[in-house]
Amino acid sequence: MQTPKKIAVVGSGLVGSLLAIYLRRAGHTVHIYDRSPDIRQIQFSGRSINLAMSTRGWKALDGVGVGDSVREIAIPMDKRAIHLVDKLNFQNYGQEGESIYSISRGDLNRRMIDLAEQAGAEFFFEQKIWDVTLSEATLHIGETERGAWEEKKYDIVFGADGAFSRIRHRMQRQSMFNYSQEFLNIGYKELNIPANPDGSHKLDKNSFHIWPRGEYMLIALSNLDGSFTCTLFMPFEGENSFALLENRKDVELFFEKNFPDSIDVIPKLAEDFFKNPTSTLVTMKCYPWTYKDKIALIGDACHAIVPFYGQGMNAGFEDISILSEMMEEYGDDWEMIFSEYEKSRKPNADAIAELSYRNFMEMSSKTADDKFLLQKKIEKWFSDKHPDKWIPLYSRVTFSDRPYTEALAIGDDQNAIMEEVLKTENIEAVWESKEIENKILTLLHEKEAVKN
Amino acid sequence: MQTPKKIAVVGSGLVGSLLAIYLRRAGHTVHIYDRSPDIRQIQFSGRSINLAMSTRGWKALDGVGVGDSVREIAIPMDKRAIHLVDKLNFQNYGQEGESIYSISRGDLNRRMIDLAEQAGAEFFFEQKIWDVTLSEATLHIGETERGAWEEKKYDIVFGADGAFSRIRHRMQRQSMFNYSQEFLNIGYKELNIPANPDGSHKLDKNSFHIWPRGEYMLIALSNLDGSFTCTLFMPFEGENSFALLENRKDVELFFEKNFPDSIDVIPKLAEDFFKNPTSTLVTMKCYPWTYKDKIALIGDACHAIVPFYGQGMNAGFEDISILSEMMEEYGDDWEMIFSEYEKSRKPNADAIAELSYRNFMEMSSKTADDKFLLQKKIEKWFSDKHPDKWIPLYSRVTFSDRPYTEALAIGDDQNAIMEEVLKTENIEAVWESKEIENKILTLLHEKEAVKN
Repeated sequence: MQTPKKIAVVGSGLVGSLLAIYLRRAGHTVHIYDRSPDIRQIQFSGRSINLAMSTRGWKALDGVGVGDSVREIAIPMDKRAIHLVDKLNFQNYGQEGESIYSISRGDLNRRMIDLAEQAGAEFFFEQKIWDVTLSEATLHIGETERGAWEEKKYDIVFGADGAFSRIRHRMQRQSMFNYSQEFLNIGYKELNIPANPDGSHKLDKNSFHIWPRGEYMLIALSNLDGSFTCTLFMPFEGENSFALLENRKDVELFFEKNFPDSIDVIPKLAEDFFKNPTSTLVTMKCYPWTYKDKIALIGDACHAIVPFYGQGMNAGFEDISILSEMMEEYGDDWEMIFSEYEKSRKPNADAIAELSYRNFMEMSSKTADDKFLLQKKIEKWFSDKHPDKWIPLYSRVTFSDRPYTEALAIGDDQNAIMEEVLKTENIEAVWESKEIENKILTLLHEKEAVKN
Repeated sequence: MQTPKKIAVVGSGLVGSLLAIYLRRAGHTVHIYDRSPDIRQIQFSGRSINLAMSTRGWKALDGVGVGDSVREIAIPMDKRAIHLVDKLNFQNYGQEGESIYSISRGDLNRRMIDLAEQAGAEFFFEQKIWDVTLSEATLHIGETERGAWEEKKYDIVFGADGAFSRIRHRMQRQSMFNYSQEFLNIGYKELNIPANPDGSHKLDKNSFHIWPRGEYMLIALSNLDGSFTCTLFMPFEGENSFALLENRKDVELFFEKNFPDSIDVIPKLAEDFFKNPTSTLVTMKCYPWTYKDKIALIGDACHAIVPFYGQGMNAGFEDISILSEMMEEYGDDWEMIFSEYEKSRKPNADAIAELSYRNFMEMSSKTADDKFLLQKKIEKWFSDKHPDKWIPLYSRVTFSDRPYTEALAIGDDQNAIMEEVLKTENIEAVWESKEIENKILTLLHEKEAVKN
């Protein structure tokens, strides 16, 4: 057991709330600050992508026994529903029984705050943190950036305040702090498929729906109330872009032409399109993540990624699992806890950033590509024959808690192998053969040999 | 001629001062702000690496007729003097008559401020800019960050305020602003070789002196007063590092062992070592560099690089040459001027960042490596025979004003060719042969063919 500390968590989002539960269980006093009002008192909407909880997320929730409470508001999705212009394909995500889970960000955040309060964490909403004194773990709080500030001293401060973290902002001004932020030229906009009058879903609720169109795509994830949260990803400028959709007519024509089967299910298309903001997507990396035994960043505050692998929240929750392991291992030595936490997590955060960045192409282009679908079929066929020799990349990321770095490295090896295999003459006809099976086995063996 | 504008330049360093001269020549009112006192009134020292002015720098200075005034305080260096532990080698930088020029940063900065004042720019020292309103080109000035601020409105604001630019700091908080800062694990420390009693130099003043030792190195550049400014580059931590040199004895033993011929010429070694700070080295990249027709970053404020190619100041001065070309081309259309300026300069800034980063290895390791010295000899021999076909990378960067991007690309091609050539059996003996000449010609031809 650790000596009880007085700990501030800045940010009452998903990671901040779950972290608070872990810290309470370890016996600490926990104050959570957020610049926004209590999300439980307000309407939350307009710029959210539904979350896809997977193994890493569940592990962190179950680690403090709150997984089942979250399962109540989650809908399993065991496959992709790929809406081509003229047909609908399905592609399973994993083995029988493996699913990712659609959860509304607002619903989950409200639930997590309730759970953190029940665990004894104290929340302070509409409290703006403008600065932090790193060496003293002291927060500077006030109405405005240039107005009067109040000081609150803690033993430890966690920055769980997202991609534009104020806590990190102060650390950035230290020497030797590495930092990068890179925006995609793709933006996103939230749209909505309402429930049927009887409360049922208009599309299959157990599918992750994608309309892949190359440089842009539409996705839809189910909600408990029968609706779907849709997200349109599209370049800001260029041939198919937000810049060209200037009025209702433009938007309606664009959807009729490119997403014909969405027209009937998105009744308030143009209205929502112009009401909801067009949001940006950023990859943010930094290092170090901690300052002595005083300050630690966690979640998006130290590794914001693009959403195309559905791993942002899962990676943030996994930060907490690893931090918790370090707390158990190093007891009261918080400098060691923080140092081992950042060393362990940084390479994995970089790996999932890379995988997420790459996956836009997979989702928006490759899911509509015959060669890619063939590759997936061959992988699945081989994996069924040799489950010990071939776990697909998606499963390594999504249905496993092995390090992301391992998934990235093995995924690259597998892709190189499949590139070779797809060069086989007449592969479309001969893939289900002993010849191909042996070819893959040989190539796998060669990769192994190189490593040893 | 442009319509006169009221322009603020933030930063009275080398780039800010030269930019002010260009803007004055174009007829604008120019106010230069700096948070520090007037460098002409104070002792400047302790964390400077002497500058190496080369072609791009001279071109920008000569463009407004101030080159000759700067030549008065510059010392030509036509070669490297490579101090190995047991011998001294020399290596020419370019062709007969080609030199880089050693200038003390303090001397040059004082001269540039004098020249800018003579051109009619007005300086405001000890004026701290804390913020800028981008859309209004308004500076916010005050004693302290949290104290009272005064507003100064301009037509245009230039941020020439270095790697930790306050102007960029505000732009960073805009959406879609890409940014990265990456520190090297190598620090540097200024040391000094004083003049002889008669005012002469203790080492050859027309050489750039290097003591290459692999992961660390010492350099020395001459000053007008007979002294040399030395810089020790070394890892912060590890086997040979600043961390291990904790007291006078450590420093003296380290220098005796590793830089034996420096001992006699650096009399205040330990004193300076502990008086002068250990400084950090950062590569900073960002984009965009401008905001509408109101704000532009220039020099280190938008592309801080490590000093190993001696191009930091030269690249900053070249920014001004390009900006000036755009001013001539687009007249009063400042939005166009800024947009074309940033589009033209960004790839070149990235290229010199990459070249500078790579050059640490060249300076600290390769200059002591026989294979590398042989490569340089072969390149020089071939280049003398075919001056139209082979301009060495160093010359492309240093003695040319062709784009850095071109130097980087051609340099990579040349390196690939030389890698092939060095594989030739018994190359040490046969390099000066028709066979090798033909081999290089063939490889060059193949590279050309690929491109067309």
